[in-house]
Order: sequence, then structure tokens, then C-alpha cells
Amino acid sequence: MTDFILTTFDWVPDIPRGYVRDLRVRWALEESGLPYRVESVTFGERGEDHFAHQPFGQVPWLTDGDTSIFESGAILLYLGERSTALMPHDLAARNKVIGWLFAALNSVEMATVPWSLFMFSQDSEDTPGRRMLENFLASRLRHMEKVLSENEWLAESFSIADIVMSDALRLVDRFDGLAQHKACREYIARATARPAFKKAHKDQLAFFAAEDARRNT
Amino acid sequence: MTDFILTTFDWVPDIPRGYVRDLRVRWALEESGLPYRVESVTFGERGEDHFAHQPFGQVPWLTDGDTSIFESGAILLYLGERSTALMPHDLAARNKVIGWLFAALNSVEMATVPWSLFMFSQDSEDTPGRRMLENFLASRLRHMEKVLSENEWLAESFSIADIVMSDALRLVDRFDGLAQHKACREYIARATARPAFKKAHKDQLAFFAAEDARRNT
Repeated sequence: MTDFILTTFDWVPDIPRGYVRDLRVRWALEESGLPYRVESVTFGERGEDHFAHQPFGQVPWLTDGDTSIFESGAILLYLGERSTALMPHDLAARNKVIGWLFAALNSVEMATVPWSLFMFSQDSEDTPGRRMLENFLASRLRHMEKVLSENEWLAESFSIADIVMSDALRLVDRFDGLAQHKACREYIARATARPAFKKAHKDQLAFFAAEDARRNT
Repeated sequence: MTDFILTTFDWVPDIPRGYVRDLRVRWALEESGLPYRVESVTFGERGEDHFAHQPFGQVPWLTDGDTSIFESGAILLYLGERSTALMPHDLAARNKVIGWLFAALNSVEMATVPWSLFMFSQDSEDTPGRRMLENFLASRLRHMEKVLSENEWLAESFSIADIVMSDALRLVDRFDGLAQHKACREYIARATARPAFKKAHKDQLAFFAAEDARRNT
């Protein structure tokens, strides 16, 4: 078996560090024990080669021999098919994991990421659109709070769905958006206490720090 | 083979008609020729039963015998596994479809839906957060414009990825957000000219209209 190759940026500014999407893939790979190595593409100029792997000029992508997979959701599903530590074989459990994987990406993160853009930009204007966005997020969090107060993980056991959901919620928590959502905060704490998360997070920070060091010498 | 059952709301207000997410599932089912029927759940009060199938109290969900699938992305993937009209069996082509399916849901729709909230609310304030959201959408559209000027469909042939991507872009077009994106508009025209889209769209409008009629008698 050849190693999976995870490609991320060689460097990113401080703000996104610890949140770059390769984190989700590193985390899944660490949970699975599947062999991998990390390669990089320049954050600055993005060439045709980059776009051939990732049509938005983003990261990560994963290569498995001749196969190249883009979109972290698709990569996690691909890895989930290859490790029961990430997604069970049992059909009913598998369907539940996949439903929650899409829910994390399309029902929850569709609210959390745009909301975070307003927080990053320190926008404090209360406008009609902003209120709709806040209500959209509040509705999603209200439902997640109920689900997470009743369940340790989204499916029967920890899965790729929890990697995405906890990481999406982590971004809200970064801006103190979960003050009223104890079950969400406790879920993030359970997820990020896992050794695989800790290693993935530490490795991402170290990867970008190594490039800082290289540039400064 | 028993029919698939697609569950949607019994009724919705005028504004979302033609855009409710059951459209994507109807469309996929029509493309595939798989047998199905449509059932409904009340739009008004949403009970425990509803949340048991869809944890956000949304629609649609799909039942296949004892199996219940939520999130339209997960439903399309489930149907794609069951029809080569929706997703090819060939592994490389399949991976490409799945990558684009996630891209439509998590890279493109994450920008289009929040942007549409500002359009729906007729919010015209130019704030720092709003500018970040506009730039986020502009960046996604710029990349999609290039991809769609070079490709008829996202993968080798029409697939579930095109159902989601064209429907996501259709929402931008509704608010004239594609005036500078000819390839995106032409892609929507190609997709919505398909008989399966036309039937799905007509059926959704007729379904809600039937409930209007029932209430008015």
C-alpha cells in the first residue's frame, strides 16, 4: 500500500492557522491509522497544476496513487470507505454517518462560515440581511444543541461526521458564539480531546511554523 | 422493488416555491426513472416524528423500505449509487462526480445561500462583512465561470453534481447575480432544459398549488 498524499498550502497567515481544511483530513487519517504524508503547494501564486487538482485554487486535496480527490467532504467520505474507525460498514449506521456528514457541510457550515466572515471583519452593523443570517445560525445551533445534549456522537460511534461538525462548531466557539450552547461546547471538548485531533492540530501549526522559520533564515 | 418515498412539506409560502429542496430529489428521480411517490409533512407544526427523520425540521427526506435518508446531498448520493444516469460506475468518473457534489454544496452554496438572504431581505447596506460575503461569492463564481466555459457538465456526463450546482446557481440568477457570468447562465439553461428538471419543477409547483386549492374550498 502506498501512502496517501495530503496536499495543503506551504504557508498561510496567522488567522486561519489551526483551521485550514487540511486539519479535517489529517484528523481522519490519524484516527484511521492509514499511512500518509503531507506535501504542499504555494499559498501565493496558484498555477494551472493547482487548479487541475482543486478547481477553486483551495486546499486540501488527497492523492491515492493515480486518484486525486478534492473537497474535504469528498476526501473524508473516501477515507471513510477505507476505515471502519471513520465510518462503519453496517448499512444503516453508514447512512446515518453520511446524512450527518452532509448536514455538517450544508446545513450547519453554510451558516457558520458566512457568520464568521462578519465576525472576522468586525462588522457590528445590524442590518436586515445580517439579522437573517444571525437567525439562520441560531436556528441551526438550537437544533444541534438538542441533538448533542442527547448524543455523544452524531451516529452510533465517532465518525467523519463528527470531524466536520465539531470543526464547524469550533469556528463559532472561536468568536464566543456558543455561550448559550453548553452541549455544543461539551461536544467540541470531547472531539478535540481525541489524540488524533491533537496530533492533527499540532502538526498543522508546526507545518506552517516550519515555513515561517525557513523564510526567516 | 417498492417505490421510494420522497417527503416534502404539504405547503410553503410563494417565495420558496420552485426552489424547495425536494426539487433536487424529484429531478434526480426523474432522471433515473426509479419509481417513487411523494408524501408530505405539515409546514406549520413540526412534531417529533418529523425531527426523527430530519433533525433540523426541514425537508426533504427519502425512505427506501426501512431506510430513511436526510439531507438532499446524501439523498442524491444514495440515488446516484443506484442509477448510472445519475453517477457512473467507473471509479475515476465517480470520484469526480462526488468531488463536484461536495463542491456544489460546501464551496458554492455556502456563498450563494447566505448572499441570497441579503437579497431576500432587500438589505442594501454596504458593510465590511457584507463586502467579505460579496467577495466570497464573486470568487466562487469566477472559478465556476471558467470551469463552465470549458465543460458542458461538471464530470464526463450529466450527474447529481450538476443537479446541485445548477440549482445553487439558479438562486443567484433569480436575483440577477449572474449578469457578468455568461457561462454560468448558459449552464443553468442547459440543465433546466432537461425534461427531468421541467417535470420536477412543474410537479413541485403543482403539489403546493393543490394544497392552496384544498385550503380554499
